[in-house]
Amino acid sequence: MQRSIDLNADLGESFGTWPMGDDAAMFRLVSSANVACGFHAGDARTMVESVRLASTHGVALGAHPGYRDLAGFGRRHLAVDPDELAAELAYQLGALDGIARGAGLRVRYVKAHGALYHRLTVDAAAARAIADTVAAFDGELVILGAPGGALEHATDAAGLRFAREAFVDRAYLADGSLVPRGEAGAVVHDADAAAERAVELAVTGGIAADDGARVDLAPDSLCLHGDTPGAVQIAIAVRRALEAAGVEVRAFA
Amino acid sequence: MQRSIDLNADLGESFGTWPMGDDAAMFRLVSSANVACGFHAGDARTMVESVRLASTHGVALGAHPGYRDLAGFGRRHLAVDPDELAAELAYQLGALDGIARGAGLRVRYVKAHGALYHRLTVDAAAARAIADTVAAFDGELVILGAPGGALEHATDAAGLRFAREAFVDRAYLADGSLVPRGEAGAVVHDADAAAERAVELAVTGGIAADDGARVDLAPDSLCLHGDTPGAVQIAIAVRRALEAAGVEVRAFA
Amino acid sequence: MQRSIDLNADLGESFGTWPMGDDAAMFRLVSSANVACGFHAGDARTMVESVRLASTHGVALGAHPGYRDLAGFGRRHLAVDPDELAAELAYQLGALDGIARGAGLRVRYVKAHGALYHRLTVDAAAARAIADTVAAFDGELVILGAPGGALEHATDAAGLRFAREAFVDRAYLADGSLVPRGEAGAVVHDADAAAERAVELAVTGGIAADDGARVDLAPDSLCLHGDTPGAVQIAIAVRRALEAAGVEVRAFA
Amino acid sequence: MQRSIDLNADLGESFGTWPMGDDAAMFRLVSSANVACGFHAGDARTMVESVRLASTHGVALGAHPGYRDLAGFGRRHLAVDPDELAAELAYQLGALDGIARGAGLRVRYVKAHGALYHRLTVDAAAARAIADTVAAFDGELVILGAPGGALEHATDAAGLRFAREAFVDRAYLADGSLVPRGEAGAVVHDADAAAERAVELAVTGGIAADDGARVDLAPDSLCLHGDTPGAVQIAIAVRRALEAAGVEVRAFA
Repeated sequence: MQRSIDLNADLGESFGTWPMGDDAAMFRLVSSANVACGFHAGDARTMVESVRLASTHGVALGAHPGYRDLAGFGRRHLAVDPDELAAELAYQLGALDGIARGAGLRVRYVKAHGALYHRLTVDAAAARAIADTVAAFDGELVILGAPGGALEHATDAAGLRFAREAFVDRAYLADGSLVPRGEAGAVVHDADAAAERAVELAVTGGIAADDGARVDLAPDSLCLHGDTPGAVQIAIAVRRALEAAGVEVRAFA
Repeated sequence: MQRSIDLNADLGESFGTWPMGDDAAMFRLVSSANVACGFHAGDARTMVESVRLASTHGVALGAHPGYRDLAGFGRRHLAVDPDELAAELAYQLGALDGIARGAGLRVRYVKAHGALYHRLTVDAAAARAIADTVAAFDGELVILGAPGGALEHATDAAGLRFAREAFVDRAYLADGSLVPRGEAGAVVHDADAAAERAVELAVTGGIAADDGARVDLAPDSLCLHGDTPGAVQIAIAVRRALEAAGVEVRAFA
Repeated sequence: MQRSIDLNADLGESFGTWPMGDDAAMFRLVSSANVACGFHAGDARTMVESVRLASTHGVALGAHPGYRDLAGFGRRHLAVDPDELAAELAYQLGALDGIARGAGLRVRYVKAHGALYHRLTVDAAAARAIADTVAAFDGELVILGAPGGALEHATDAAGLRFAREAFVDRAYLADGSLVPRGEAGAVVHDADAAAERAVELAVTGGIAADDGARVDLAPDSLCLHGDTPGAVQIAIAVRRALEAAGVEVRAFA
Repeated sequence: MQRSIDLNADLGESFGTWPMGDDAAMFRLVSSANVACGFHAGDARTMVESVRLASTHGVALGAHPGYRDLAGFGRRHLAVDPDELAAELAYQLGALDGIARGAGLRVRYVKAHGALYHRLTVDAAAARAIADTVAAFDGELVILGAPGGALEHATDAAGLRFAREAFVDRAYLADGSLVPRGEAGAVVHDADAAAERAVELAVTGGIAADDGARVDLAPDSLCLHGDTPGAVQIAIAVRRALEAAGVEVRAFA
């Protein structure tokens, strides 16, 4: 029985004068922060602020690289070839690490964003490019992602540790994949329900699928959303419920 | 009498599908490469290629940060405040260093680009922001720039080494500043004349100003232009003349 | 005694996934919308939505060009030369007009944004470049700006109509310039006070300066802020007070 | 037997300080210029220069919209949804038309660029969005593209004229599609061979496919490349051969 779990969220996704989410609140609630690196969101000043918040609240700093597509927030598929993906990952990872060094911190893990995240579950060449680049940058880094896909395989092959995440506010199919958005019950909006699922995932490593069957996910981290309506309320409820259940919230990295 | 000198040039200034300069030739001729970091020019893939060329030819790798202004190539003044300058420098420096690590290299010095270069000779607050950020990133890094300005002062104050550069193809006034572009004789276009000046600067540390008076510049590095017509020819002539005069071309960093 | 006045606001300043302001509310309250054109804020899809709102609510459509600086929201000085300013204005103006045509609308006026707005009050060459470009695009367009500066002069010289604006939430000095932000009383935060000032400006054409002297501004339009806290409340109060005072809110263009 | 043909090329694809191609030469040789609109290449100042060259040489001005991807030159697939494509087309088309108006010119046709060009041959929803947007902007505009695909169909449905193009330097399969790049003989590098093919296409409307069968393409325009090595030499040879064969080079729009 698992007695600790990580909570991660996408943070630092403001850009220039445009804010996003309530980072001041979220950095108090998570143990790992996936910080945007300027390609799909974020900018140098926002990254400085995210590093400061991570340092203040003892949160593990993760690089959150995405496609070079500010206008689309990295959510649109962009046919970047693996060599260029590798170069753009090293660029983004190095940029955040460079900013972190100024505050005495270092990047401890990498989680891809948006359309790139999804691509890395199925595109073996892209996944290899990413995993090998992370390994060449720093062999102590962990890669965080969806369990069982191309990225987990490539991470193993690169000799790095892979951390698996599960979603507290998404319903699962019996095969461990997510119920597609748009289908009934795909997204859990209720904070208490999300909190209950978080405890079950943390304590048992699994959850009931939409057909009632049990899915074993064995998550190292639970993903919270940082920028949806009610995000902070869900994060508070999840954190409280975990602590009430005796589960320590602790960074995996 | 000085028996070695550095040759530096701005390289890696292609962007996407648009090439600039003849990097394949120039990396064979310089000892230090100021590599653009994606803000005024360059992109992740170009940076990978620059790092590869630096590694192949034993050239010291320098970060060449600029204003976030691709459309203006960083040549236009942009009123970025010092805090944001510091953040953007850490971002660019970290990005290049991140790419370099993948090839077993590290960034060894920093030289600002274009309008930022000029601003740092006179803007003390901006110069402090830059020097302090470089020091926080890595206290072994050197800052390369124009002698005697705000940046040299801030670099000293930050406890870093400052390397002074002189221009082989620009005429000097008696006070050590450059004859403004547009004035007669401001730019030396002839390769042999540039080579002769390079030798004089390297061997004696000084040069004749436009009024005939001797200017003492004590350069650690001579700047070659990488993207002007005849750039490669001038670089070849300079390098040959230095070697013929018994001056070793060697990175300062 | 003036019995109608225009109300303008900067709208359409969202970018990609990042919202700004409450455009749905503000388009119901203004008579003229300064719509960002993608250089300092806005994007094609946001512009389509702004044009739709302008059409629905009978609001005059204005182009709101700025510097090419999304990261700085066009608020930082950028040393663009007048020829390039002219080209960038024609680009932005044409882009919004192109989108408007699809909805059966046309751009009716131009108001510059941020650092460009301020520059055009004092930089005669830039002001000429802007006014001449607007005239070449469409001689029926009006230019909206601060009274008495270089842009008003250039607009007159180009044979275009200039519309003067005043600010309902800013204090004035006796010479007609604004009390600098940061000084006590520079900004009026109270909705009722702003509304009272709006009525006085609309009815009498002037306002009491900070030293009590009367300033005559003869505004064609009153500028409301669209994205500050309380912006919508101020706009509602201003609109109601004008109507209660028998002043028609009507576009100048 | 056809006695006139159009020659088109992608021009105005410089960006900022980075040049591309020899526009000064190419504008003398084509009858239609596909001018980049700032999304995949080009910028406001380059567009002003392209419009000036089109005006000087009596070349028909075409908008050449692409994906918002300067770093990838619009050559990478980007999953922009049809509504946003429509908005981005209106933006780009309007921007070029805005610049053209200042020189007394107007845009006369539209040809999509790169990955968007290819998508429009097969994606019916995207093709409809593009054709309907062009029609709403100006019903007199022509759409230029590959014959027989989704875009030709959508253009017909929108009540606009479609102009078909053929490539003078690409081999064709018997079904009228291009021999894929990378296969032997896919690209014609020899200027005389290209010129011979141009004359055959212009005079007979068809060409021999790679298997010897005749393909009927009925082109309204022949596409020349503007930025490949030898581009100008091929364009000169094609133009001379057409004139020698008594075929007038004349814009279709």
